[in-house]
Amino acid sequence: MNRKRITIAGATGSIGTSALDIVARHPDRFQVVGLTAGTDDAALERLIQTHRPEVVALADVDAAARLSRRLAGTQVLAGPEGVAQVAAIPADLVICAIVGAAGLVPTFRAVEAGNDIALANKESMVAAGALLVDAAARHGVRTFPIDSEHSAIFQCLDGNRRDGVDHIILTASGGPFRTTPLSALASVTPEQAGNHPNWNMGRKITVDSATMMNKGLEVIEARWLFDLAPDQIRVLVHPQSIIHSMVAYRDGSILAQMGAPDMRAPIAYAMTYPERVETGVAIPDFAELATLTFEAPDTTRFRCLELAFEATRRCGTLPGVLNAANEVAVDAFLNGRIGFMDIPRVVEETMSAHPPEPLESLEQVLGVDAWARSHAEQHLNARRSAGSGG
Amino acid sequence: MNRKRITIAGATGSIGTSALDIVARHPDRFQVVGLTAGTDDAALERLIQTHRPEVVALADVDAAARLSRRLAGTQVLAGPEGVAQVAAIPADLVICAIVGAAGLVPTFRAVEAGNDIALANKESMVAAGALLVDAAARHGVRTFPIDSEHSAIFQCLDGNRRDGVDHIILTASGGPFRTTPLSALASVTPEQAGNHPNWNMGRKITVDSATMMNKGLEVIEARWLFDLAPDQIRVLVHPQSIIHSMVAYRDGSILAQMGAPDMRAPIAYAMTYPERVETGVAIPDFAELATLTFEAPDTTRFRCLELAFEATRRCGTLPGVLNAANEVAVDAFLNGRIGFMDIPRVVEETMSAHPPEPLESLEQVLGVDAWARSHAEQHLNARRSAGSGG
Repeated sequence: MNRKRITIAGATGSIGTSALDIVARHPDRFQVVGLTAGTDDAALERLIQTHRPEVVALADVDAAARLSRRLAGTQVLAGPEGVAQVAAIPADLVICAIVGAAGLVPTFRAVEAGNDIALANKESMVAAGALLVDAAARHGVRTFPIDSEHSAIFQCLDGNRRDGVDHIILTASGGPFRTTPLSALASVTPEQAGNHPNWNMGRKITVDSATMMNKGLEVIEARWLFDLAPDQIRVLVHPQSIIHSMVAYRDGSILAQMGAPDMRAPIAYAMTYPERVETGVAIPDFAELATLTFEAPDTTRFRCLELAFEATRRCGTLPGVLNAANEVAVDAFLNGRIGFMDIPRVVEETMSAHPPEPLESLEQVLGVDAWARSHAEQHLNARRSAGSGG
Repeated sequence: MNRKRITIAGATGSIGTSALDIVARHPDRFQVVGLTAGTDDAALERLIQTHRPEVVALADVDAAARLSRRLAGTQVLAGPEGVAQVAAIPADLVICAIVGAAGLVPTFRAVEAGNDIALANKESMVAAGALLVDAAARHGVRTFPIDSEHSAIFQCLDGNRRDGVDHIILTASGGPFRTTPLSALASVTPEQAGNHPNWNMGRKITVDSATMMNKGLEVIEARWLFDLAPDQIRVLVHPQSIIHSMVAYRDGSILAQMGAPDMRAPIAYAMTYPERVETGVAIPDFAELATLTFEAPDTTRFRCLELAFEATRRCGTLPGVLNAANEVAVDAFLNGRIGFMDIPRVVEETMSAHPPEPLESLEQVLGVDAWARSHAEQHLNARRSAGSGG
């Protein structure tokens, strides 16, 4: 068969690495045409030697210059525009795995070039969902989810008609503070919030899991990925994280997708849909798992989840504001500037200072993102000078 | 839209009643063209008044004569051949819900007439699976499962490619004696085995659930319905019966179908596939369910399950022998002639007395069924005269 032409934007991160693991397991299926990274030219060089892409890019121009001097035969582009150009090379699938707002432009450029995308960049759907859905429709582009929750929904919807869907159920582990007494939450430390104190990205995600803002962002993404009304999206706490998510149909049936918590499975499915290939992920043994438990999310404890639902309902530019303010607030928490329960307060204050506008352009999205970060930061400073600690 | 022409063979039983409940909920979707029953002409008459079929049949010729005298405008056929004729009327779907060996001929006649079938008659797949699959392929007929477990597998396979399937997992409640000490099993009573001491059909099924022979028969059916190798079929005890069954894929993913234990959901899916309609079955609330548990089946306790796997592997006429011997053994247990742990012994003895032949014809299937019943009965009598009680 013809090999699928794959580009990975964000090749050196955890999603990119897992995607390349799938490529390496199935060399007969995939041909890597483009790779991008941020600053790590040494890591990218190793990937180039293994996967022989046609063109690569580094967002950091100095790193790109260093790599270019060492390499012959591979085209090295530089800067954010270089990264966006690589995403636009003709490909069967672009894996959009750049973290943060930097992933927005490459994602849209991939879509505008008519490349199907596998989406791991949250911002593209959270802050710019309506624009991305519209662009994908105009360019006849398919969007495959990579998040394990959204991949689960995608798998449970496949073969079914959308008009039969009653609601979807995104499952959530509940994070490290699910059972911590509410009275103790204000004083939990960044160290208590995370198992990865040395890995900054991991710490951000772990805090988002503790506040359940990660699930709130997934609610917003699901709204766009699956064209659902906000009240068709529900969240269920399932601490074992074996059921990755579910779809409830109007006939009373629920379909669920389950598996070990290993990103290679959803990444591979986005890469090989509608086929399923060997991924190195073991099938769970239910007799060994023995017990799965479920509970409704506690809305006091998980105020961020409520804020995300509010942003989903009011829509427009508001979800982007929620996301940007949350990043500032989590960073402040990790740096000891605010308490854990202040995170939703900063987000809510920033949201209430922003009258949402309908989405119109990527420039608008980036402008609102910058405004929300700056506003949240000023709010933090004002709190500090007023002596407020939570 | 054009209404779907539906025939129900076995209209007065629990499956038939549930199917007609779905018809009544969606009069715009279905037109009942044929109904059959065994002996209950009064019950069939009530269904005729509601659903206005073109033709009906009663297996009992006296009952058919009584009904015919009371009715004008509906054709009433009589006897097993009359029932088979109704199954062969041109229809979009024949629901084969006749219990026992009497369901075999009508099922095959529906298929030979080119009617799609929704299959609730276990014998058709257990005793004659290879023949039925072959006939369905020759006549271009689709077979929809009705059992909740097989419907779950069907739903989890839909939209997926068969070559991606690693194995399927049939879930089982484990029945009333799942936690009874092994030493006490020999002396359990028919009353302990069932909650429906006055409903004979319910008692048979409840004993099959206690021995897990019901799951064994489902293993055999699944082998034919989904064209699986015997070692691709696994059984998992799940006492809450919320997960109706699952499919494990080679990428590490498991898809599961869940729901309240209400037959209307799988029946409706067979009737409206690929659409899903309102069924009156409520979507389960997982926060309320709170806990789902799983365990491997105990092969000593559930010897019947092992025997069914053996029959699945050796195939041919052997699954029919297992099924017939089991019916005799369960009847003997319910009548106090043998102990609970004698049920697998009777089945095993009968199986070992039968060198399996490849399946060739329905006559052969019916002949083997009669032989197995007679052999098991003789074995019971021999045990009795030898004074063996367990």
